[in-house]
Amino acid sequence: MTEHATAGQGPGPLDGVADLDAARARRRGIPEAVYGPGKSVEQLVAIASALRERPDGQVALFTRMDVSRATAVTEALPGAHWDEQARLLAWPGAEPEPHGGLVVVACAGTSDIPVAREAWLTARYLGCRTELVVDVGVAGLHRVLARRTLLEQASVVVVVAGMDGALPSVVAGLVAAPVIAVPTSVGYGAAFEGMAALLAMLNACAPGVAVVNIDNGYGAGHLAAQIAHANPGPTDQ
Amino acid sequence: MTEHATAGQGPGPLDGVADLDAARARRRGIPEAVYGPGKSVEQLVAIASALRERPDGQVALFTRMDVSRATAVTEALPGAHWDEQARLLAWPGAEPEPHGGLVVVACAGTSDIPVAREAWLTARYLGCRTELVVDVGVAGLHRVLARRTLLEQASVVVVVAGMDGALPSVVAGLVAAPVIAVPTSVGYGAAFEGMAALLAMLNACAPGVAVVNIDNGYGAGHLAAQIAHANPGPTDQ
Amino acid sequence: MTEHATAGQGPGPLDGVADLDAARARRRGIPEAVYGPGKSVEQLVAIASALRERPDGQVALFTRMDVSRATAVTEALPGAHWDEQARLLAWPGAEPEPHGGLVVVACAGTSDIPVAREAWLTARYLGCRTELVVDVGVAGLHRVLARRTLLEQASVVVVVAGMDGALPSVVAGLVAAPVIAVPTSVGYGAAFEGMAALLAMLNACAPGVAVVNIDNGYGAGHLAAQIAHANPGPTDQ
Amino acid sequence: MTEHATAGQGPGPLDGVADLDAARARRRGIPEAVYGPGKSVEQLVAIASALRERPDGQVALFTRMDVSRATAVTEALPGAHWDEQARLLAWPGAEPEPHGGLVVVACAGTSDIPVAREAWLTARYLGCRTELVVDVGVAGLHRVLARRTLLEQASVVVVVAGMDGALPSVVAGLVAAPVIAVPTSVGYGAAFEGMAALLAMLNACAPGVAVVNIDNGYGAGHLAAQIAHANPGPTDQ
Amino acid sequence: MTEHATAGQGPGPLDGVADLDAARARRRGIPEAVYGPGKSVEQLVAIASALRERPDGQVALFTRMDVSRATAVTEALPGAHWDEQARLLAWPGAEPEPHGGLVVVACAGTSDIPVAREAWLTARYLGCRTELVVDVGVAGLHRVLARRTLLEQASVVVVVAGMDGALPSVVAGLVAAPVIAVPTSVGYGAAFEGMAALLAMLNACAPGVAVVNIDNGYGAGHLAAQIAHANPGPTDQ
Amino acid sequence: MTEHATAGQGPGPLDGVADLDAARARRRGIPEAVYGPGKSVEQLVAIASALRERPDGQVALFTRMDVSRATAVTEALPGAHWDEQARLLAWPGAEPEPHGGLVVVACAGTSDIPVAREAWLTARYLGCRTELVVDVGVAGLHRVLARRTLLEQASVVVVVAGMDGALPSVVAGLVAAPVIAVPTSVGYGAAFEGMAALLAMLNACAPGVAVVNIDNGYGAGHLAAQIAHANPGPTDQ
Amino acid sequence: MTEHATAGQGPGPLDGVADLDAARARRRGIPEAVYGPGKSVEQLVAIASALRERPDGQVALFTRMDVSRATAVTEALPGAHWDEQARLLAWPGAEPEPHGGLVVVACAGTSDIPVAREAWLTARYLGCRTELVVDVGVAGLHRVLARRTLLEQASVVVVVAGMDGALPSVVAGLVAAPVIAVPTSVGYGAAFEGMAALLAMLNACAPGVAVVNIDNGYGAGHLAAQIAHANPGPTDQ
Amino acid sequence: MTEHATAGQGPGPLDGVADLDAARARRRGIPEAVYGPGKSVEQLVAIASALRERPDGQVALFTRMDVSRATAVTEALPGAHWDEQARLLAWPGAEPEPHGGLVVVACAGTSDIPVAREAWLTARYLGCRTELVVDVGVAGLHRVLARRTLLEQASVVVVVAGMDGALPSVVAGLVAAPVIAVPTSVGYGAAFEGMAALLAMLNACAPGVAVVNIDNGYGAGHLAAQIAHANPGPTDQ
Repeated sequence: MTEHATAGQGPGPLDGVADLDAARARRRGIPEAVYGPGKSVEQLVAIASALRERPDGQVALFTRMDVSRATAVTEALPGAHWDEQARLLAWPGAEPEPHGGLVVVACAGTSDIPVAREAWLTARYLGCRTELVVDVGVAGLHRVLARRTLLEQASVVVVVAGMDGALPSVVAGLVAAPVIAVPTSVGYGAAFEGMAALLAMLNACAPGVAVVNIDNGYGAGHLAAQIAHANPGPTDQ
Repeated sequence: MTEHATAGQGPGPLDGVADLDAARARRRGIPEAVYGPGKSVEQLVAIASALRERPDGQVALFTRMDVSRATAVTEALPGAHWDEQARLLAWPGAEPEPHGGLVVVACAGTSDIPVAREAWLTARYLGCRTELVVDVGVAGLHRVLARRTLLEQASVVVVVAGMDGALPSVVAGLVAAPVIAVPTSVGYGAAFEGMAALLAMLNACAPGVAVVNIDNGYGAGHLAAQIAHANPGPTDQ
Repeated sequence: MTEHATAGQGPGPLDGVADLDAARARRRGIPEAVYGPGKSVEQLVAIASALRERPDGQVALFTRMDVSRATAVTEALPGAHWDEQARLLAWPGAEPEPHGGLVVVACAGTSDIPVAREAWLTARYLGCRTELVVDVGVAGLHRVLARRTLLEQASVVVVVAGMDGALPSVVAGLVAAPVIAVPTSVGYGAAFEGMAALLAMLNACAPGVAVVNIDNGYGAGHLAAQIAHANPGPTDQ
Repeated sequence: MTEHATAGQGPGPLDGVADLDAARARRRGIPEAVYGPGKSVEQLVAIASALRERPDGQVALFTRMDVSRATAVTEALPGAHWDEQARLLAWPGAEPEPHGGLVVVACAGTSDIPVAREAWLTARYLGCRTELVVDVGVAGLHRVLARRTLLEQASVVVVVAGMDGALPSVVAGLVAAPVIAVPTSVGYGAAFEGMAALLAMLNACAPGVAVVNIDNGYGAGHLAAQIAHANPGPTDQ
Repeated sequence: MTEHATAGQGPGPLDGVADLDAARARRRGIPEAVYGPGKSVEQLVAIASALRERPDGQVALFTRMDVSRATAVTEALPGAHWDEQARLLAWPGAEPEPHGGLVVVACAGTSDIPVAREAWLTARYLGCRTELVVDVGVAGLHRVLARRTLLEQASVVVVVAGMDGALPSVVAGLVAAPVIAVPTSVGYGAAFEGMAALLAMLNACAPGVAVVNIDNGYGAGHLAAQIAHANPGPTDQ
Repeated sequence: MTEHATAGQGPGPLDGVADLDAARARRRGIPEAVYGPGKSVEQLVAIASALRERPDGQVALFTRMDVSRATAVTEALPGAHWDEQARLLAWPGAEPEPHGGLVVVACAGTSDIPVAREAWLTARYLGCRTELVVDVGVAGLHRVLARRTLLEQASVVVVVAGMDGALPSVVAGLVAAPVIAVPTSVGYGAAFEGMAALLAMLNACAPGVAVVNIDNGYGAGHLAAQIAHANPGPTDQ
Repeated sequence: MTEHATAGQGPGPLDGVADLDAARARRRGIPEAVYGPGKSVEQLVAIASALRERPDGQVALFTRMDVSRATAVTEALPGAHWDEQARLLAWPGAEPEPHGGLVVVACAGTSDIPVAREAWLTARYLGCRTELVVDVGVAGLHRVLARRTLLEQASVVVVVAGMDGALPSVVAGLVAAPVIAVPTSVGYGAAFEGMAALLAMLNACAPGVAVVNIDNGYGAGHLAAQIAHANPGPTDQ
Repeated sequence: MTEHATAGQGPGPLDGVADLDAARARRRGIPEAVYGPGKSVEQLVAIASALRERPDGQVALFTRMDVSRATAVTEALPGAHWDEQARLLAWPGAEPEPHGGLVVVACAGTSDIPVAREAWLTARYLGCRTELVVDVGVAGLHRVLARRTLLEQASVVVVVAGMDGALPSVVAGLVAAPVIAVPTSVGYGAAFEGMAALLAMLNACAPGVAVVNIDNGYGAGHLAAQIAHANPGPTDQ
């Protein structure tokens, strides 16, 4: 058994745990993101400490952080900001100056708010101009129609919905911008933990819709930022 | 092996084939319906001949009839009417005098028309006042909103859609009447032969929606007629 | 970040949480319903307080309310009634004067009672004449046959069953009224949390059956009320 | 490459094709059965020729035989009997003298007849007293109740149904004998090629039901014969 | 709201809870069985009290009883016997005098023992001669081959297995008796809570196998007793 | 039956068939697209004729057109171009002048080419600068690494893959641009008609990936054009 | 549109079709394999012609070749050998001198022979010593036990089975060598095109089993060759 | 009830619990392994005690052992070693002298480490030379390419990955050795507890990959040891 076999046992803080990828941030122009659930508090603190010592000063995001993990990481990264609903921790906590096109995040129901906030804050910390619109489900069309002006200003719209996953089809029919659809696990019975919404969104009857994983607010916000950064957006024109 | 074992071999036209249920029509107030696909032309002609000799003169419907089966049955039941798109054969072919509330059948796309026509004609031959509205998918909301007045007159709305199955949620948010949703197998890939639309409809975010089997236009039309017959409907009030 | 981004943080009780839809009650003739599970106690109390201040005096229902949520909401809405088995909270707690056709709710087994009660109470608080029949599963046909007279008086029958989901087919063969089938998650193993019953009901061998989501007693009661209100029912004729 | 590698190429009729298991018939007391679909006409004729030369004179069954395969095998096995609906070929074609308890095969609809006949003929050729009852689906309970006396005489009941698969629960509630349930692929849409009926039957709400594979009439008939042969049955008592 | 609506609220111990079916025991020759999980302790005690007052003195079984429910019911039914592993409670606790053919219950692994014991005790309390054989999985064929003599004496064999569900095919190839296969939820990952074993058993490559629901030891024991009671079995011949 | 009921029977070429949406093109800035499979040759020709008479001169695309449909539509729309592999028909056939960022379409294997070409031609006819790269599956990493310079110039990359669906994760790790992943139905057995690739892509281990429906090259090309048009792309900077 | 966009249209035989990977053969020590179904006859002939001009003289395999494709490729590659059952075409057709450990391929039933032959011939053309054993399904254990001596000589065993997929568990319990399990799509109904066998094999109750895709005889033969080439095998020791 | 029925009740430590199979170790050349989850602490201690008294001194492994079970078994087997991350307990704890080819275990992400360690330690305790490589997911290809020299030295590579399951395809394209792929349940939403990775791996686009059950590190390590023991490996040549 050589030194490769020392996974998780070495003296350095990240030996055998993770291969922090600063080059990737430079290569892809995107900050580091750390997925919380699969890691112990100790592993997360070790990653946080290593981030603090990086010279590049880039933003780092920790996703799906419960309160105990968020508290421990905040101690290691003073000045970090944790959003309880979105379970997202950002460091540094100050939001960067926004630039590029507008990202609008819209969600169908109250229960979809945590995922929508994760998308919205991710785009915000990646440097986008953002808006969050809640409770515009298709059962009351007047609600989404009332936000039409705002939606038309977006360079990209993130649409978050559970249950029947119908909102992306409606929004994509209203706007010229691309739509990133996020199915949520909201619903019960034949919602099958978000599968119903996922399938509906993959079959959206309006073109211009692409889908990310169930409850993947981070992924949607990241992708929206990639699209919006290259796009000045209608409101700047 | 006793006489029970003579299935399909006896001299009478329906021995061992089907147990025509005239009492059921009386009991339930609903005409006989014969499902075509699982039966041979010979079996269908035997059933048709037996129907012709029944004294009650009730309407009979044959569903999912292709042209060869429809031709053979029409010979046995002169005056029958066959709708090629709906694949529905009705005997007698003359439509009964309509009564009760209005049944509106609305479908999302052109490809949903065969199933929508099956629902619409079923309700029509069961004695309902009916309307058929096509191509009102949610990707262009102005289309369904333009039919709002008609929809509000309905005692029951049958909504037919494939792909994302989003139309029933939108319609149920617009009308006070119950909505019968029919998923269709229209779509490809992750539509999974109508499963995506089925799941979406079962998770409709508006209350007042119930669902029938995929492509089951007959079942939706039948149920709509049951509801509308006891309901004078807004237009009669 | 504009004011749209203040979801869940504003001073008003419902800012960024939910868009209470009084117009919908007027538009659709149906009271407000609040789904409990996706919301915090604080959110539910905020909604309850807003409801109390609405001038219209309409009925409001809160579904799937556990004891702690029900207690908190009852404090905000004095006079509310909570049914522990159905987990349904109604405000005001007094039942409205019933009118229209009769809604009969029938369930197959003892374990289906909570869902059946949710359907029954929903229809009752929406103003229907109602009856609840329990333990009439098809393994003992004498039980459902003994209730045949009552079932025949219904304007609509809600049938609640888990496991094999066979009861709707049997009931729909006995009555002329439409049948709303509710699959429950009762069963184990290959019941797959209600999927077996759901599929069976979608394939009911009797026409006149439509299906709502698994365990969706509220949805079935709501739909039954829509149908029954326009229908005087056999017992009134 | 040794002689084991000569699969399908050797001079003997069955070299590398199948290992006819006469000892199994002796060991298990059950005739040989050959499943047709996976084999070429040549392979089936080779098996037939080998069977003809076996000295034991036992019954052999070929299942799922279409007309071309049946014709070829009948030439190799003169006196064989082929049932077109059941697609079953039996050799010798004369039915053995029946003994033991009564096997009743009941099917829900006309479309289930082919599978029901396969079960019924299998039990018959394995030496059982048999009865076949068709078109007793639960949508018209009077039909199955009319056969109650016959069903109560059975030592074992084979129940064949597609769509909602509800009939086994009803029959098992009526009789004291074990019930072998056979789901069929009859139905469309959410029947999912028999999966709905299969799941319903596995969740039968009456005890005393076991299930075989979808459309597996042969397996049900075989199992019924095993049960009935050791059972004199009510009619002999 | 009439008296039918008093489900679960009436003064009688079982009003609106369950319709105890003594006639069924007489009709089907099988004792009452009460499924524990869907019922409260209070409901179970009410059922137990009603059973104690029945004059027929028949055996009653309560399935899937955890320790708290078992304790409460035992207080209501003195002399009851509870098997902790099988979670089965029998009343009266004394085993009846066995008669008829032999039921052999065989299970593949140690983890399958609880389900196997449920089947074995069910058959035992229904009056059968029984044997229980454990840990005869197919990965060590010598184990099942060592029990061949016992297996050949059975009138019916119940085979319990999780994971690959391979044991029923092997046992059915060794014996002439019918095999009742019980898939268990033992396994992980792609075992999908017993679905892998269930599918394998439905596709058993030996004829003479029928399948009950996942983990349904009670159902298998019940069915085995139905088969064995009419069968003297090899050991009595 | 009013005039709404004349679906498919009226005198105008599109009455009751489709509601051509010229306003949508203006509203969304995207040409009309007609999905071929659900429509008859007659319906397609009617739509083509109506398009020809529209004054706006916009591009129209017909997707999934087999040779017979393409021939008929080309007669109605002289100058149309049909790509046999992509099954895409464009009218007018001349490609518009490209503008905006670069769309790179990359596919994993030879069998993915038809879907990749559909995406590539769609983006091209919607006015994008495009490149198509084939046969860069991850089993030979040197192939995709050899195209790295081209990939880095893209404003958006469409990645088409069947089987394991691994290519989007690899590409998204190499580029800063957003990735639109298209699963194809290429593969067999446990590929389950593209489900394996779909699930893999939804779980891409690199951020910046969104997914469209299986084989939906049109949807990917459309979305890519929306993104690229607002993006000058690295090569123009 | 640059030259990258010329997919399938260039003058060279493989431009835009496939990137023949001679370096891979050198890198991995394994010949080229071409999957037939996704390619036109013209594409296959182009690949064949390119292979013929490669100087390395390595073996090439074409899988799943029907008779028309095999005929066309054989004209382009004189001396190729096509096995009709396995649908495998090898060039050059002469088998290489075998070396290394023994590969035994065993299949459960006659219908599994085509997949078994594909595995067996693949290993043979990759230079292995091979044996093929057919019809050793677990329903007759004496058949597999009779081949125990041969199985124990193997360096690796490929086990091919459909239906219940039980054979790999049994074989892995008998031998010390690794077992490669190949599920086949043999079976019907709940076999779900090989899914039942696939799941069973993934849950094999004996350690030492790994699984390849459904019907993937080529993959199993390739993997077996990789294992056997480094292993002299018991028979050489 | 004979002595066979005394499962779990007898005086000997393993009566009715497990049939410890020392002969199997000899027959297959592989130590005993005990799967922890399905067994009580008492059953595990009984097995441990029996192992301690076996004269053969072979290694025994206990898998998926939580801390309480590990503590109890370590008391019964002094000198045992428990790895907390891998949840694997080995007795004796001293690692055997390694021999044969090199086993390299590579995992994609930090969350996959527990399963990777289980595979790595299993191979190590079965006597292999081993290396463990972590965090080489395909989103950063430079990581896996940096380990290419080590990977090329392996006689067999175990690749552990969740989410998109893409790593085995990439690794199999880089090395000549066989690849054992282990899907993990790492991921969320449409990862469906490892199903996405499982399907991707079964469809790996590089040949030379076989798959074990989700999270089955033990199975992969066992199979790798079987392969490597017969293989001196590149580093020894």
